[in-house]
Amino acid sequence: MIKKKINAAILIIGNEILSGRTQDTNTSTIALWLNSLGVRVNEVRIIPDIESTIIKTVNLLRKVNNYVFTTGGIGPTHDDITAQSISKAFNLEYKIHKEAFIILENYYKPGEFNKGRQKMVWLPNEANLILNPTSGAPGFNVENVFCLPGVPSILKSMLGGLKNKIIGGEPILSYTISLKTVESEIANSLTNVQDNNKDVEIGSYPFFQAGKLGVSIVMRSEDQLKIDKCSSEILEFVNRKKIKVVLR
Amino acid sequence: MIKKKINAAILIIGNEILSGRTQDTNTSTIALWLNSLGVRVNEVRIIPDIESTIIKTVNLLRKVNNYVFTTGGIGPTHDDITAQSISKAFNLEYKIHKEAFIILENYYKPGEFNKGRQKMVWLPNEANLILNPTSGAPGFNVENVFCLPGVPSILKSMLGGLKNKIIGGEPILSYTISLKTVESEIANSLTNVQDNNKDVEIGSYPFFQAGKLGVSIVMRSEDQLKIDKCSSEILEFVNRKKIKVVLR
Repeated sequence: MIKKKINAAILIIGNEILSGRTQDTNTSTIALWLNSLGVRVNEVRIIPDIESTIIKTVNLLRKVNNYVFTTGGIGPTHDDITAQSISKAFNLEYKIHKEAFIILENYYKPGEFNKGRQKMVWLPNEANLILNPTSGAPGFNVENVFCLPGVPSILKSMLGGLKNKIIGGEPILSYTISLKTVESEIANSLTNVQDNNKDVEIGSYPFFQAGKLGVSIVMRSEDQLKIDKCSSEILEFVNRKKIKVVLR
Repeated sequence: MIKKKINAAILIIGNEILSGRTQDTNTSTIALWLNSLGVRVNEVRIIPDIESTIIKTVNLLRKVNNYVFTTGGIGPTHDDITAQSISKAFNLEYKIHKEAFIILENYYKPGEFNKGRQKMVWLPNEANLILNPTSGAPGFNVENVFCLPGVPSILKSMLGGLKNKIIGGEPILSYTISLKTVESEIANSLTNVQDNNKDVEIGSYPFFQAGKLGVSIVMRSEDQLKIDKCSSEILEFVNRKKIKVVLR
């Protein structure tokens, strides 16, 4: 049985990323995790905390991707508007989610589940919860749109519980050969290998290591045999050109 | 004289970012630099090395932003397709750029400017060059679309020479107050401050420092007086609630 290709978009919601103040790391975390489940990330967008922009972008992305993962905007402050925006995107009532209310009521000490914190249980009606083992407040999904927090350590802790909700395709395999050379020395040979192996995505990435230039060649495919064939063709020209393979 | 608002989009081109293998840091670099010139980043997109996707996305973004900055895909290998894609996006001939050819011919030792390296001087006809003080190969711009390399250290070294090509608005000022508290303790007070100061963008960002929870409140505006007013309203409730201000 050949599984079909499954794809996703990541939508990073947050002025702090657009201003450059905060370096996004969630894209890489989510992408690596999705790849291991056989889901390919087609596109990432980073947008501001503006309701109309969130609604428009979610409605666009959810129609052309199997999954959409949003990060950010699910905390208790005025700039956390993801849940209300998703409610509007799906035409769902934005209201107190009973299950989430019970979770947070139990999570906090008596009297601490104040009005500020209660904002975190206002969710789209009938949203499914994504449990948060770190700080209580759950994420949620509506259909194929999964809403996660922006704080990287909390987000990471929530992916484990999410795994069974994602139906992936064949895992995307990757193999890297790193060389002590510069891209222009191998460009033509690599083009030939790519032309002979159209089903393998071959990327070429320069790096600096201990003051030396190098190039990592990354092969990606769902098929290990195709990667192996491609890899041996690369090693053939690498040996012929007497280029050194290095560990990274 | 009131300068009008100037905005930009950043377009990160590269499968290695979408696969999670490489952590993008160029967004933050470009955004901080643009903010200092009075240019606000409206949107970031990360897309794969697919010509039709690059063309479509560039043509969309360049019409709704004052500037577009692309990163990645301008090296010598088969997966470097930014220059040819930009040529097609603008209906310009893709050909050897004489000025770029002379720069690289002088940059390399005699005989080293081989066919692989010559790919880097194939550019859209009449593109303006962006000089590269690190590794020779220039970036370029066509109209309002500026194409920079993906390697962060090289990209950074090219921004200085680009400054005079960007006409910005009022610099976007930012002021941060960091507090030893949690978001839910200040959420309602902060909402009131935001309601009183609609022209100031107020963000609230939880952090962990030495095992303690904290919140950074970031105010952004082109007007220092507005930030000062907002800041004093925040400090008013911070004092009233006996919350400690911390250094970060």
